[in-house]
Amino acid sequence: MSGAPKVDVVLHNAVVVTMDGTLRVLRDGAVAVAGDRIAAVGPSVDVLAAFPCAAQTIDLGGRIVLPGLVNTHVHTSQQLARGIADDVDLMTWLHGRIWPYESHMTEEDSYASTLLCGVELIRSGVTCFAEAGGQFVSEMARAVELLGLRACLTKSTMDCGDGLPPNWSSCSTDDCIQSQKELYEKHHNTADGRIRVWFGLRQIMNATDRLLLETRDVAQKLNTGIHMHIAEIPYENQLIVQTKGIDHGTVTYLEKIDFLRGNLLAAHSVWLNKHEIGHFSKAGVKVSHCPASAMRLLGFAPIKEMLDSGVCVSLGTDGAPSNNRMSIVDEMYVASLINKGREAYISGTTNPTALPAEAVLKMATINGAKAVLWDNEIGSLEVGKKADLVVVNPFKWCMVPLHDSIANIVYCMRTENIESVMCNGRWIMKDHKILNLNEDEVISSAVKRANDLLARAGINLPERMNYM
Amino acid sequence: MSGAPKVDVVLHNAVVVTMDGTLRVLRDGAVAVAGDRIAAVGPSVDVLAAFPCAAQTIDLGGRIVLPGLVNTHVHTSQQLARGIADDVDLMTWLHGRIWPYESHMTEEDSYASTLLCGVELIRSGVTCFAEAGGQFVSEMARAVELLGLRACLTKSTMDCGDGLPPNWSSCSTDDCIQSQKELYEKHHNTADGRIRVWFGLRQIMNATDRLLLETRDVAQKLNTGIHMHIAEIPYENQLIVQTKGIDHGTVTYLEKIDFLRGNLLAAHSVWLNKHEIGHFSKAGVKVSHCPASAMRLLGFAPIKEMLDSGVCVSLGTDGAPSNNRMSIVDEMYVASLINKGREAYISGTTNPTALPAEAVLKMATINGAKAVLWDNEIGSLEVGKKADLVVVNPFKWCMVPLHDSIANIVYCMRTENIESVMCNGRWIMKDHKILNLNEDEVISSAVKRANDLLARAGINLPERMNYM
Repeated sequence: MSGAPKVDVVLHNAVVVTMDGTLRVLRDGAVAVAGDRIAAVGPSVDVLAAFPCAAQTIDLGGRIVLPGLVNTHVHTSQQLARGIADDVDLMTWLHGRIWPYESHMTEEDSYASTLLCGVELIRSGVTCFAEAGGQFVSEMARAVELLGLRACLTKSTMDCGDGLPPNWSSCSTDDCIQSQKELYEKHHNTADGRIRVWFGLRQIMNATDRLLLETRDVAQKLNTGIHMHIAEIPYENQLIVQTKGIDHGTVTYLEKIDFLRGNLLAAHSVWLNKHEIGHFSKAGVKVSHCPASAMRLLGFAPIKEMLDSGVCVSLGTDGAPSNNRMSIVDEMYVASLINKGREAYISGTTNPTALPAEAVLKMATINGAKAVLWDNEIGSLEVGKKADLVVVNPFKWCMVPLHDSIANIVYCMRTENIESVMCNGRWIMKDHKILNLNEDEVISSAVKRANDLLARAGINLPERMNYM
Repeated sequence: MSGAPKVDVVLHNAVVVTMDGTLRVLRDGAVAVAGDRIAAVGPSVDVLAAFPCAAQTIDLGGRIVLPGLVNTHVHTSQQLARGIADDVDLMTWLHGRIWPYESHMTEEDSYASTLLCGVELIRSGVTCFAEAGGQFVSEMARAVELLGLRACLTKSTMDCGDGLPPNWSSCSTDDCIQSQKELYEKHHNTADGRIRVWFGLRQIMNATDRLLLETRDVAQKLNTGIHMHIAEIPYENQLIVQTKGIDHGTVTYLEKIDFLRGNLLAAHSVWLNKHEIGHFSKAGVKVSHCPASAMRLLGFAPIKEMLDSGVCVSLGTDGAPSNNRMSIVDEMYVASLINKGREAYISGTTNPTALPAEAVLKMATINGAKAVLWDNEIGSLEVGKKADLVVVNPFKWCMVPLHDSIANIVYCMRTENIESVMCNGRWIMKDHKILNLNEDEVISSAVKRANDLLARAGINLPERMNYM
């Protein structure tokens, strides 16, 4: 415990779930925050004694303090598209809805979408997210700066592929790399260090080998990460087998061309065989498991096998038209359920012991931090790390009784229980109130822009019932 | 529309999702309530004109009005056991946790448990539930009367089977039938008609043929329903094949002995083959699909096949130690996800068009009403039906934008969006406040009783992390 006398906030009388290397949980614990960092974590009595002159001392009355949750796959630009692509096949989803939507989006739309998405992220206890890849990184950065969140922002790049909207199809490999370098120069390490810029590849079907390998090299040189959708659907693997002369799918091919590195965040990664899991493990590739989206659109990812092989698996929500709840709180619940249920097809019966609560909570915290290459500063409550944390009120109707707090966090906690959120030492939500912006204005602006955008893109949804 | 001039409440300026026979949705609709019944459903302008002297006229500002949701499988007595049996195998779940818990429960515990469960039911938009079967129906009835909910209450009966707790193992067939007859006499049609008493059978492994057939006959004579767990796990089917000389599982056997009737509510029904689905369809058996619980403990129920065969499938939460969220709102979301994902194992890829939002919403409303044999009075918003309804605020961060309201109700709606709930013409929650009881007192009493009960039952849970 640090003995530095000057701290800004002491939170005490809390159940502090540290998620540190030994998974310590302090029954009557405290966290002291100085500036943007954690100055102390320890028993309440000790921390209170060490910092008698803290600017603010808050008695949490037995509430739970968690590290800020990390959402490792979010399409912030798709928040205005919630509900435009439900219950349709994948081709309609992509060509009839998502591409028309995204290709008609303006910079201001992207800003509004990111703000609305950010509200949902904060309300679900997220302090750091990895953007899955959109078009307007500068607008995302502007929104993230205001929201007070931490983020790895990524432009989605494509330099080949069939069926792309006209305004996207002309991007050359050089343009893809150059535009990202410029974004890196402009935004990396801005907003008090809360924003980092990553490199983005949409998917293998829209990337030449040159784009893949130059992205690998430039990201390595700049010491940043790469975010890419990998092995999402069986068709993707089949196509790669047919066109690349290999025996199994995207991961096999990426390994063959020496693309896989420890700074690669592979989203979804549903259709991997055991050799490919081995490739991920060996190269240190990180995985963003998006359970709800996978259930809807992709399939059952081999999460147990990846974890058993030492792959770092984290949690993501995907985008609003794929999920549609953008909440890591719900994603924890769904992750555990479907990974227990998946076993029914392997062993003939579900395995209720698969992916237990503590494993899921790791995925949402410290594994998330590792996946975004930031675990030296976030993902657990430890002295010297950034002060990213969540205050959970577990005494409400939906989380009691608390016979097993860790299980209740994963299986019962709802966004209602997320009371306050701090990122980088500053409260961004306090007592359920989003602090840095006017939430009502964000919502009304986003709704108006969403309606205008759909009209502009010519997206008309069939009515499901008999409206009158 | 009824022209009766005297009504108690007119709700207008709402999106009224009627779930009636033609699935009408009124964009600017109104519902008038007189006493415990719906007096009118129609365009706001018409209803307001017809009832200018309503005691109360509420402008809902474009909010959504749904029929009260129906939860067709709830163990109200297990609410105090939330978190006692997570991530353990089925034998530990039953013999090490649930049976010790239930067999040490007192009548007062059951009352406290039902109250706590009722709060969660109301907050998730439920106005009617089917108790899955506990020990103390009179205490459940006392709680339901206070909560203001509608319920089909059921005693769990067992007259045979291995491994039962000592105080349960001595129940004779006659005792099982007689005690239920007495409960029926005492509580059926009480609480202004909100309470009905059903007959309960825990599962086939704990029921003699005589208990099955006498239950069938007595329930038919009393014109009430039977609630039973059926075809939950592969082991159940295997045991029945071995002991009864039939070729496949519980449903085949129940058909053989002529047990299946239209007043049977079959909970879970995961492991049915196509012949057994045919038996259900022919007999008019109703199914309670509990998706979260099935994922954790049982397997993937053939919901699509049952619906295609004309079986009435509804939604249930199961009990708190099996789920652990007791919310039909979440269950709608999970139901759609897993039934899309399940297709991955049948066709090699998920089917995002499977179980679309409108089908799920039917399961939670009108199918639920049919499953509890009450669709002549609940399950849709129609003139003459009981006034059971839910007011949803869809303008919050988690449900906007509203490009597809029905999809958003199923995929995005959270308990936060459930603003007010009316049952039998009376508000039981208004503007997020539970009206008929002191929620804080219910919670604190339940927590104390839960801790005492676990101590009494000798249930000790291992710690998942390094507590200090």
